[in-house]
Amino acid sequence: MRRRGVKNLSTRIVSHPEVLIQNPAEHKGKWNKLFENDNPIYLEIGMGKGDFIIELARRNPNINYIGLEKFPSVIVVAMDKVVLSKLTNIKLICFDATNLKEIFEDHEINQIYLNFSDPWPKSRHAKRRLTSKSFLDLYQDILIKNGTIEFKTDNRGLFEYSLVSFNQNNWEFLNLSLDLHTDYNTEEIAKTEYEKRFIALGQPIYFVETKKKED
Amino acid sequence: MRRRGVKNLSTRIVSHPEVLIQNPAEHKGKWNKLFENDNPIYLEIGMGKGDFIIELARRNPNINYIGLEKFPSVIVVAMDKVVLSKLTNIKLICFDATNLKEIFEDHEINQIYLNFSDPWPKSRHAKRRLTSKSFLDLYQDILIKNGTIEFKTDNRGLFEYSLVSFNQNNWEFLNLSLDLHTDYNTEEIAKTEYEKRFIALGQPIYFVETKKKED
Repeated sequence: MRRRGVKNLSTRIVSHPEVLIQNPAEHKGKWNKLFENDNPIYLEIGMGKGDFIIELARRNPNINYIGLEKFPSVIVVAMDKVVLSKLTNIKLICFDATNLKEIFEDHEINQIYLNFSDPWPKSRHAKRRLTSKSFLDLYQDILIKNGTIEFKTDNRGLFEYSLVSFNQNNWEFLNLSLDLHTDYNTEEIAKTEYEKRFIALGQPIYFVETKKKED
Repeated sequence: MRRRGVKNLSTRIVSHPEVLIQNPAEHKGKWNKLFENDNPIYLEIGMGKGDFIIELARRNPNINYIGLEKFPSVIVVAMDKVVLSKLTNIKLICFDATNLKEIFEDHEINQIYLNFSDPWPKSRHAKRRLTSKSFLDLYQDILIKNGTIEFKTDNRGLFEYSLVSFNQNNWEFLNLSLDLHTDYNTEEIAKTEYEKRFIALGQPIYFVETKKKED
């Protein structure tokens, strides 16, 4: 996902602080103030170049979107697109999801998207997968009660792992598809850059929507 | 699954009562007596022509197997194979799974297999699927504590439905594969008649092993 040799990266990364938020921890518990409204906040973790979340922000002006991406070389591409779009209901953060709780208060987020996350295929790296137990526990904290996660991937191993992880950690499946674009109207689905390529190749996209079960 | 025009069916179905048990309700709570040992009992529901369970019975002489199948025209084929095999650790029952509790006592079964069950693709028939809530409740009753279900199918819709049903009814996933014969050593897997055909066609087999979570 990382891109190499991006020119003027250190300058670009600070060039649109109204879009790419520079000190996200300062907004913990008060992201709505930054958006200047009380609309729900949807968070994409590992947003990449942003096509998916920007499309959603365009379609849903009454929802606030935050895109998280850890690689500066990638997030600047999304930043440029948001600036061009002139959308005000989307902010970006260059940050590692491991430290989510430094930037979000408990129950501050209404919905989380995980799209085509790094599969970390080696078992010894399983904990780094964004659907491992420690991440699910973080998501549970920052999500509102009954807040949902929507997870999409083309990676079979990651999807199998994630279904087991959600299930074993008491997340309830609300929707599940082993071939998203056959089961749903492709036109209506906001797509990531990866996803567009996979659809063109006819590869199935796996999908699950889930929420934490009540204790 | 039903076969038509099977000759002498009414005669054949009663011709090997030592294999195809005629009054299964009489053995409720005492199947071990029929097997003349205290070995665990594994049950296949919708056994079809029996290749899968006969193969398991051959491999595992210290496990008792019961194959349930509702169509007489199909079960007689399995019956003939069992008779030929001379195996004594396998019995067959021609019976509808809806009435499982008429023939099994609570906690009498150690493990259940569901292989290539009828997908009942129309939503109005969803309750007939062998992984719907009412069936899962029956399985929970007849299974020992921590008893498992192993479920295999080539049918995407049925597998999606079943994962959601297991999850929503608090069954824990122990193993899950969206391509069983790629993930595991095909040689080691006992296969149904259907499965052999699907493997030949290169179609993926979906698999999940699950057990009821403790309350």
